[in-house]
Parts: sequence; C-alpha cells; structure tokens
Amino acid sequence: MRAWRLQAWKSDPELVEVDQPRPGPGQVVIRIGGAGACHSDLHLMREFDAGQLPWGPPFTLGHENAGWVHETGDGVTGLQVGTPVAVHGPWGCGTCSRCLAGLDPYCENPEAAPVAGGGGGLGLDGGMAEFMIVPAARHLVPLPDGLDPVTAAPLTDAALTPYHAVRRSWGKLSPGSTAVVIGIGGLGHLAVQILKATTAARIVAVDTRGEALDLAGRAGADLLVPAGERAAEEIRRGTGGRGADAIFDCVGTDRTLALGVACGRMLGDLTIIGLGGGAVPVSFFGVPYELSVQSTYWGSRPELVEVLDLAARGLLNTATTTFPLTDALEAYRQMEAGSLVGRAVVVP
Amino acid sequence: MRAWRLQAWKSDPELVEVDQPRPGPGQVVIRIGGAGACHSDLHLMREFDAGQLPWGPPFTLGHENAGWVHETGDGVTGLQVGTPVAVHGPWGCGTCSRCLAGLDPYCENPEAAPVAGGGGGLGLDGGMAEFMIVPAARHLVPLPDGLDPVTAAPLTDAALTPYHAVRRSWGKLSPGSTAVVIGIGGLGHLAVQILKATTAARIVAVDTRGEALDLAGRAGADLLVPAGERAAEEIRRGTGGRGADAIFDCVGTDRTLALGVACGRMLGDLTIIGLGGGAVPVSFFGVPYELSVQSTYWGSRPELVEVLDLAARGLLNTATTTFPLTDALEAYRQMEAGSLVGRAVVVP
Amino acid sequence: MRAWRLQAWKSDPELVEVDQPRPGPGQVVIRIGGAGACHSDLHLMREFDAGQLPWGPPFTLGHENAGWVHETGDGVTGLQVGTPVAVHGPWGCGTCSRCLAGLDPYCENPEAAPVAGGGGGLGLDGGMAEFMIVPAARHLVPLPDGLDPVTAAPLTDAALTPYHAVRRSWGKLSPGSTAVVIGIGGLGHLAVQILKATTAARIVAVDTRGEALDLAGRAGADLLVPAGERAAEEIRRGTGGRGADAIFDCVGTDRTLALGVACGRMLGDLTIIGLGGGAVPVSFFGVPYELSVQSTYWGSRPELVEVLDLAARGLLNTATTTFPLTDALEAYRQMEAGSLVGRAVVVP
Amino acid sequence: MRAWRLQAWKSDPELVEVDQPRPGPGQVVIRIGGAGACHSDLHLMREFDAGQLPWGPPFTLGHENAGWVHETGDGVTGLQVGTPVAVHGPWGCGTCSRCLAGLDPYCENPEAAPVAGGGGGLGLDGGMAEFMIVPAARHLVPLPDGLDPVTAAPLTDAALTPYHAVRRSWGKLSPGSTAVVIGIGGLGHLAVQILKATTAARIVAVDTRGEALDLAGRAGADLLVPAGERAAEEIRRGTGGRGADAIFDCVGTDRTLALGVACGRMLGDLTIIGLGGGAVPVSFFGVPYELSVQSTYWGSRPELVEVLDLAARGLLNTATTTFPLTDALEAYRQMEAGSLVGRAVVVP
Repeated sequence: MRAWRLQAWKSDPELVEVDQPRPGPGQVVIRIGGAGACHSDLHLMREFDAGQLPWGPPFTLGHENAGWVHETGDGVTGLQVGTPVAVHGPWGCGTCSRCLAGLDPYCENPEAAPVAGGGGGLGLDGGMAEFMIVPAARHLVPLPDGLDPVTAAPLTDAALTPYHAVRRSWGKLSPGSTAVVIGIGGLGHLAVQILKATTAARIVAVDTRGEALDLAGRAGADLLVPAGERAAEEIRRGTGGRGADAIFDCVGTDRTLALGVACGRMLGDLTIIGLGGGAVPVSFFGVPYELSVQSTYWGSRPELVEVLDLAARGLLNTATTTFPLTDALEAYRQMEAGSLVGRAVVVP
Repeated sequence: MRAWRLQAWKSDPELVEVDQPRPGPGQVVIRIGGAGACHSDLHLMREFDAGQLPWGPPFTLGHENAGWVHETGDGVTGLQVGTPVAVHGPWGCGTCSRCLAGLDPYCENPEAAPVAGGGGGLGLDGGMAEFMIVPAARHLVPLPDGLDPVTAAPLTDAALTPYHAVRRSWGKLSPGSTAVVIGIGGLGHLAVQILKATTAARIVAVDTRGEALDLAGRAGADLLVPAGERAAEEIRRGTGGRGADAIFDCVGTDRTLALGVACGRMLGDLTIIGLGGGAVPVSFFGVPYELSVQSTYWGSRPELVEVLDLAARGLLNTATTTFPLTDALEAYRQMEAGSLVGRAVVVP
Repeated sequence: MRAWRLQAWKSDPELVEVDQPRPGPGQVVIRIGGAGACHSDLHLMREFDAGQLPWGPPFTLGHENAGWVHETGDGVTGLQVGTPVAVHGPWGCGTCSRCLAGLDPYCENPEAAPVAGGGGGLGLDGGMAEFMIVPAARHLVPLPDGLDPVTAAPLTDAALTPYHAVRRSWGKLSPGSTAVVIGIGGLGHLAVQILKATTAARIVAVDTRGEALDLAGRAGADLLVPAGERAAEEIRRGTGGRGADAIFDCVGTDRTLALGVACGRMLGDLTIIGLGGGAVPVSFFGVPYELSVQSTYWGSRPELVEVLDLAARGLLNTATTTFPLTDALEAYRQMEAGSLVGRAVVVP
Repeated sequence: MRAWRLQAWKSDPELVEVDQPRPGPGQVVIRIGGAGACHSDLHLMREFDAGQLPWGPPFTLGHENAGWVHETGDGVTGLQVGTPVAVHGPWGCGTCSRCLAGLDPYCENPEAAPVAGGGGGLGLDGGMAEFMIVPAARHLVPLPDGLDPVTAAPLTDAALTPYHAVRRSWGKLSPGSTAVVIGIGGLGHLAVQILKATTAARIVAVDTRGEALDLAGRAGADLLVPAGERAAEEIRRGTGGRGADAIFDCVGTDRTLALGVACGRMLGDLTIIGLGGGAVPVSFFGVPYELSVQSTYWGSRPELVEVLDLAARGLLNTATTTFPLTDALEAYRQMEAGSLVGRAVVVP
C-alpha cells in the first residue's frame, strides 16, 4: 500500500510503497477513511532533529484518523469488520490507572507504551496511508449514525482537545457564569461550539482578527472582544466586574495568559491549551484567589465518544477540505501558506 | 471594658478602656471566651504603614475569636443569649453569591462589606477585649458539645485555612493517592490531621526541622521528608514514580513551590497556602500536565462548622497556651521570640 | 391596600382592604409587579380543611411573586428602593445549614421558620395584593436586565422546581445521554427547555396529548413519545437499549413512575416532581441497578438566580396571560376550566 | 489439576480432576493462592434449578479469588509471571462504556460477556481449584506490598461491595454528617471500617445481635443501636433530629428498609446492599424529600485497587479462616452451621 512517510527529520514526507500491516493479537487494522493534516505535522517536518524526541523517523504521518475496521487480531472481540471507527490517538501503556480510564495522554508508564510519548503518526505509523495498524481495540470508537470518517478524523484531536478542557470546568460554568475563549482558530472555534452545546455560560471570544471574531459569533459567542490592552477591562465589565469563571487560552503566550489572569474570577479556571510557549507566574497576591491555572493535553477515550455524539447530532461543526492521498503534500503546503479553509483531511 | 487596640501603624497595641459595644439591628455582641494571637498580628504591628491597606488603626486586635452570645440586635433570630459560639472571621458584603454561600473571603463586593478586605481585628474591632460586636448573626457558629471557646478560637483561622484547601482536593485524595504538606507549623500540622481525619490518602510531611517532622509523624503523617535537594525525588519514589496528587504548600516560597511542581502528579493539585511571597511559573511543558496551581484564602462558614465538629470529636487537636487579657503583649513577645509552645489564646 | 385573602378553608378568596405592611428589622416590603396563580392555590381553596396543614386561613394568596423593593427594615443592606426583585418563595428558619445555603425548602428547623412548612401565600400573606412583606432580605433576588416582574413571577416556582431536579442530574447528562420528561404541562415544558439550555443530552418527551408533545418539540425535545404501553420500549430502543440516564416525572402517578423504572438505565436517576400521589417500590431486583429514585421539592435561592439568568437571556420562555388584580378569581376560574393559555399572572 | 465443581443444581460440589487451563489470546491463567467461600455459593448448591439463571452447572465454584500470574496468552502485556494478583470478579463485555471504566457489574451488553450475568465461579470456572483462567488481563489487579492472596481473596467481594456503596455517598459524608450501617455481618463490619478510613462521618451501627454491635464498635462505630422499634428514634435523636445522611442497608428486608426511611435525612442516600428481598415504596410524601433510594451491585475495578490499598495499609481488616483445598466442603458446612469465625478462604 502507499503511505506518506517522514523518512528523516527536517524533510518533507514521501509517498512510498510499504507492506500492508497485519494485526497481531489484540490489534486491529483499519482501512483509512480520513486522516487529518495537523499543524504539528509541520513542526515534525521542519523543526525537530535527532535526539529531541524519544522517537523519530521513519514513520507514516497522520495522528487524526478514522476509517473502517479491516482486520482484527486474535483475542479482539466486539468489533465487526466494516464498522466505521475513529481512532483515539494517544496510546499509553494500557495498564496504568489513567490508561484503564481511557486517559492515555496522561499515561504513567510511557516506557511501556507502544512508543513513549507518541502514537500513530507520532513515531509509529499513522493514517496518511491506505491502512493503519492500531495496537489495541480499546483505541477505536465506533462512529455514531450520521458521522462519516472524513468528518470524524479531525475531531479526534482538534475537537477532543478543547472538549477535555471545557468539560473539566463544567462545574464552574452554571447559568450566570462566563467562559472566555482566547484565540478563535481551529481549536478555539470548536471550544465556542462545545461551550454552547454543553453549558449555558455566557461565551466571550477574544482574537486579534475581525474575521476570527465573526466566526466565533456564528459559532455562538455572546461577546466578541478584540485582543489588546482594553480586552481585560471589557471582559470584566461584561461580567459585572466579577471576571470570567473559566478562560480557555488556545494561544498560550505570555501575553494571552496575562489576559487570562487579568480577566479571571476568584475560584475560576485558567486553562492553557495552546502551545504558544508562554508562562504565567502564580502567587498568592499575583492572581485572583483560587483561580486554578493548569495546562491540559488532548483528551480521553470516553470524551471522544461524547465529541462524536455532539458532531453526529449537528452540535459540532468544523469546515474541512479534502485531498486525495496523492495530494497530502499539497495540503501541508496550503496550511503552511495559510490559504487553507478549515481543516485538511486526506482521503485515500 | 478593656481592649487591646492598635492605635497607630508600627506600634505595639495598648490596653485601653473603651465603651462596651451595643448591637444594632441584625448585629450580635459576644462576650469573648478566647481570642487567638496570630502571626499576622505581628505584621500589623511592625510592617504596614498608612495607605498600604484599605483600612487602618485605631482598632482592636484579634481575628480568631470565640465566646458566648451576650446581646442580640433587632431582627436576630435563632441565637440565645449564653450560647457558646465561634466567629467566622471574614466579613463580606453579605449579598453577593459568595457571601450568601458563606464564602465571605471571596466576597465580590468588598466595598459593601463592613470594611473592605478586612474584618474583626483587621480594621474593625476584634476579640482582644471583653466584648466584641459581630455585624451579622450569620458569622456565628454555635459550638458543638465538647468544645470550649478557648479551644475553638484559633481553629477559626489556623484550622479553617488548611481545611478549605484540603477539602477542595478531596476528589483527588482517594485511597492510593498521596498528599504532601510542606511546612509543619501551625497550619501545616493541622493540615496533616485534617487529611488523616477526612481521607485515606498517604500523607507526606516536608520540613527543614526534625522536630517539626516528629510533630507531623505524631499527627498521622506516613512519610517524613527533610526539605532539601533530594526531597522531590524521595516523594516521587514514595509514590511509585507517579508523584503526589495534592500538595499543600504552607510556606509558599519560590523554593517550596518548585518542590511542589517537582513532586506533583499529572492531574493533581498544588495549592499555595503560605504567605512566603513566592511564585511558580505555570506553562505547558513546565509543570506536569493538568497539575492545577492555585492559592486559597481562609475558608467558608460551612467549612468552619465542619472544622468545629472534627475538633469536638477529638479528630483535630492543637496545642494552646492561654494568657490573661492583661498579658496579650507578652503572648506576642513570646511568639516573636519563637519561645511559644502551640497557639496563644488570650482569655479575658 | 387590596388583597385576595383566603378567609376560610373550602371557600373562594375575597378581595378585601387590608393595612399596607411595614417592614420590621431585617424585613422588606415589595410592591407587587406580578403574582402567579398556581394550581396548588386551587387545592387550598377546595380540598383542605382545619387541622390538615400546620397553618391555615386567613392569609393572602400568591406564592409566585416579583415586584420592586418598596421599603426596607432596619439592618437591611444592599437593596435599593425601586430595585426589581423576584421572591424566593420557601422561607425556612434561616439558621440551619440548609437555609444558610439558600435551600429553605429543605429547612431542618421548620418550627423556627416564619410559618412551619409554608411561606408567603402559604399560611402567610402572599403576593395577590398591592404590597407584600418578605421576612428576610435574603429571599429576594434582583432581576437581571431584560426581565420584568410579570415574566419573573411564575418562574420562581414553575421553572425553579424542574430546574432544581434537572440540575442535580447534570453529572449524568453528558453528551450521549438521554433525559426523559414525563408530562409536558407547566413544569414539564420548562424542564425540556432547561435540559436544552444546560445540557447536550437527548431529550425525550412523554405525554398522552398530541398538543403537549408538539409543545415539547418546539421547546427542544428530540423524541416525542405518546404515553402508553409501548412507551418504555420506544424509549429504550431510542437509547440503543440502554435506557434513559435521567427521568423527570412531572406527573407522579403509579403508572408514570412505573414507566420511569421501565425505561431507566442502570446508574441513572428517576426523580419525582409531580404530585400525582403515586409510589414506586424500589428493591434489589425490581429496578435497574443503582437507578436512584427520589422526590425533589421546589429549589434553592442560588438556583433561582440561575433560572432568572436563563430567562433574561431568552433561553427559558413560558407563555403568560395577565389579569388585573380585580380579576384574580377569573384567572383561577379559567385555570379550573382548563381554558387558560399558559401561566396566569395577576398584575396589581 | 483438582477443582471443586458444581456438577448439577441442588447438589454439593465435588472435588474432581480436570485439565489445567491454558490461556488463549488476551487471557491469563493464575495459580490460586486463596479462594473465598461465599454465602451465595450455598444458594447455588441449594436453591437454584435449571432455567432460573442464564447459566448453570457444571462449573468450578469460587468467585473471590487471588493468586499469582502463571501463564499469559498472546497479546497480554504488563503482567509478569509470578506477580501476585487479585481477580476483579464481574466480567462484562469489555467494550461498553461501563466495562471500559471497569464497571463490569453494570455491563450493558451482557450477552457479549464471557457468560451473561455471571463470571468465574458463577457459570464459568472459578477459583476453588489449583488454577483458574481469567478471560482478560484487565480483570487482574496486582497486589500492593504487604497483601497476600489469602487476605486479598475475600476482599474482592465482601469489601468491594460495601466500598462501592460507601464511595458513591462520599459527597454527603462530610464532617458533621452521619452514616448508618444496618446489619453488621461480613459486609457490614467492613462498611464500618471503610467509613472510618475514608470519611469523618459519625458511624451508627444497627443489628439485632449484641456481639455484632460489639464488632461494629471495635471496627470504629460511634453509636451502637439495637434493631427494633425504637431504633429510628434513637438514630434521629443522635443526629440532633436531622436524620442520617447515608444509610447502607446490608440486610435489605422490608423492615430494615423501613428503618432506613424512618431515620433518613432529607437529601440523603438510602442504599440497598443486602439481598433480603425487601422493597421500599418511594413517593413524594412517603420518604424524606430528596432522600435517594437505590441498590448497588458489587464494585468497579478502580475501586478494587483502592480496597486493596486500604487493606495493605492496615485500614481494612477481616478475620479469615483458611482451609486446604480438600476441605472446601467442610468450610461450606461450617458456614451453613454458623460456626465459622470470619471469612473462609480455601488455599490450594
């Protein structure tokens, strides 16, 4: 079969012929229906070098995957060939308490995982190919009626990540509360939709770009705030002076995190989702009392089930542009150029 | 009546004769049975100057108070004269959602409180006197059987503060989990007891002083770790490599907070209780994934009810040394000199 | 002033002239802007007799009230004359732990309440009058912008009751879950809206009447099921065989409760809201494992704040028909005849 | 190898020679270190007949098992031969949301489980043998240091069942609350210990037998109440009139459940653990407002991990009497005669 493989650090992937995988005991091979192209793939092609990560090339790209069960290994039960499935991307050891709860991104024995700190498309072979091997059946989630693999693929990362962050703040997002989403890009515009679908919180969107704010408005945001010096004041005023109960920073720079602190409410949440490289100093007098600051990483398998349910019911929508397998490189080029509308999904 | 009043910043309090207070509508005057002397009183006498706080002298010291209902104002119901009570110290506006839940330390209209950001003994007259006026009946908690005002007074602050911090982490402190208390002083040794009484978590105590660790051991700590370079490693090893589920930093310096990050588990809590002036930079890669970092301040009225219940049942013990009202200054001198055993309580 | 007073059991109320109330310490007099007429008022006029309730006539009817602050008693702070407010109807002792949390319907010292087991319009004078006295300022909730007293009045009961029931089940109503509302009348059609606004659960509505199901559909229900022998089977099929995660029975007869058990999921909630007089036998093998069965009564003050926020934002709508004060009896007559559209609100 | 097999309904098991099992893909064979003899085994020998259960003889008895990993099938990772393990007894389909959370007793696809509604020792071969096959590695929990298989075996059922029931009520068992355990037998005396170890609730024990109450007292109960007409009144008085926040009925007859209702607090929990065959009618006026009534069944795998942690740390103790494999029938005879002290564990 054909697969887009990263053959070496600091290089473009190549479309090469490889053996079609066969499942060992407990494993499953899926036929790919859609593989999302993610900005982090660009980082893999451009920025890393030997020794920086615990894994490296060669491997097939693609960590946002959905398709159909093609072949199951010995001991796999409950999965019929042909069943459409999404792949829960983070693959942990499978035996620690976090993995047993489907919380593989927080695996506590990464050295016992198929690859330490990676997964399919991240050190192991991913979904930018005709077939993909998944190391355990528990990583697969059958698609609910009304959801196809092309739509599902990018949700496994771009929606699952903000979903996990929002879900853990539900307890603070009762009616009358306010949620702020900083950065209305791929993750941010889904965060707005997730908040709209699952809470009755007022939703504030912050971005530097007018069209991003427009997108947030269409996704359900109640208040659109241009980023800048007056943003915190405007948010605070919009909350009767109290501040926001939960801030989801999808950018993650020093500047956006400082905005999060400035507009946060006592007892609230400030959650770092974006990989902007920023930091926020937390101290007794430096942040509102009991504002909890934390970063989250990806999401759990049960959360992926919930994300797919929302999408199947039309409560979560993301624009996608599809590319045939041969054009994956073109998808990455358009992403790099900023000319892509929505999420790119490669369809073998 | 006699009262120890702070007459000016940067001075010792003076024992002077003042009018006995009379309650207005909704107010209550209590006869003081015990008033705790707190280290923060020393800060008030020594460090602050005009303009630094929203309130200032003259006022009567003492913000850890208990006694008996002496006289109730018009409209007060449900409190009989002579009932022994503890005073919930933080006094907010009484009408915001936090105050209505008894969460006065997180009052969102401090400008509508009896004094902004203060309370009895903190800008308003406190309990280092024969009588004390309390601005609303809801600040009083009847003492459960078996608890006297002398014992109860210091619990309203020294126990309530760590209790609030521990209670909010209960969800992470299931059997098999680990809690770390950094700094085994007045608050820390109560934090250990609170953890012991209310959870089945393993308890790790960290301090620089051997006798403090001994105290923690007697209070129920399972593992005693001397502060220092190897502390984080020792804690991590004691948790099978996973790290601690909740860290309560009763010191709060850069160094202790760094220890908290170094020994913290993914998805855990790092809570700043101590006023050591430190800060911890929180970033995506700088702290374990989803370790929540926050500071807490004092506790709620319902939590004070629970603290008093624990103490009445013998599950919470704190050493106290009593001083007659005339000797309050001596109590502060011994505190300053470090020669005091346990908590000083002034008894009129 | 004029007031509709129930002068004796088993009689219609009479519009009589009474003294305008004046507030004592801590009390507030409000000028009524709207007083909802509730079916339970009809029970008071028709069914009860001396000795059956801990309280009785004469008193002014009306337990769903909103208006404007008219006069405040000594010691009341934070309420300006003229502020529009809704009245939290259940009035407990004010000093037990439940009352202090605003959970007056679950007051544990009813003998210390203004009236045991009653409130304004329920043993004490209610809002079917020009003015009404409220025994404590904490029972008043300022109306958010965009909400007037006529709209707010019925929400204090007809919306607050199902809101409390739904809110306590939020933890079981994640995406992918199913909520069932049995009985789409005054409370039921609001339950559907509340579920829609605050969760992403699938909503199933059950009723015997086609027009009630239509109303549920317009309110946001996903599946409309005619009551009857096949209802449980249809609901179970609609949930992939698993059953419903939460059932809100707004009827409360043996038959509707049996439906709740028949369509309930293991680990779900079956909540009795309606006063249909039915009972459900709970036993180890008789109900799905760990299906929790309970009745709820009214709601808390913090929940009323949330209800009003939802309504002010247009997420909660209820049809109302207004009547001038002189026509209150006509409103009850139309209710009794079943000819009334929506909720009747009497406007002085 | 030798195994105690139930060869037919209504008969004693027989010690027979059978083939030693070998693991298929994903399966594990353990060498038995201890197999608990449970009263429900007596029911299997005495009461059931063909067609009453979805499964039947012949099979090997023993559903409370612990031992050492002996042989692992293809695809099993993370388990070393020789590791001491406890067996999580309920075996569900492994792919529904409940099984994926380790909540096999609430499996929603029982027809896809190894046996519908049963498990090892319950339709499939159990642990009253030298070796036992476990159908999936996830059912095994490595024993923590300090815990041996003989001690661990009965905990997998007799402790796990009340642990699950208590754990779900933690939110209602804050300091100041009261928990009632009705029936201080095998499960009940462990319920008392679990409450003591994991909460600061006051613990009330109810039983008809004085020695059972003595046992409860030694296990940590605060108040011992003889069953009978005055029990509810005594419990209510012991809670200041409020009633108990959580009642765990380990008997489950009409009479004990009625006691639960009579002594229950509004907003509390009444949980049916015992298989006494009783029922409690729940209605609006028949039980305290919002007292939740439910039955629970066994417990989850993560909860078993916690139970074993408590036991390894000495916080959970159960008396056991060991019998060699050849004497299992004698163990059952002593159980039936009521002459057994503690839990019988068969040791091959």
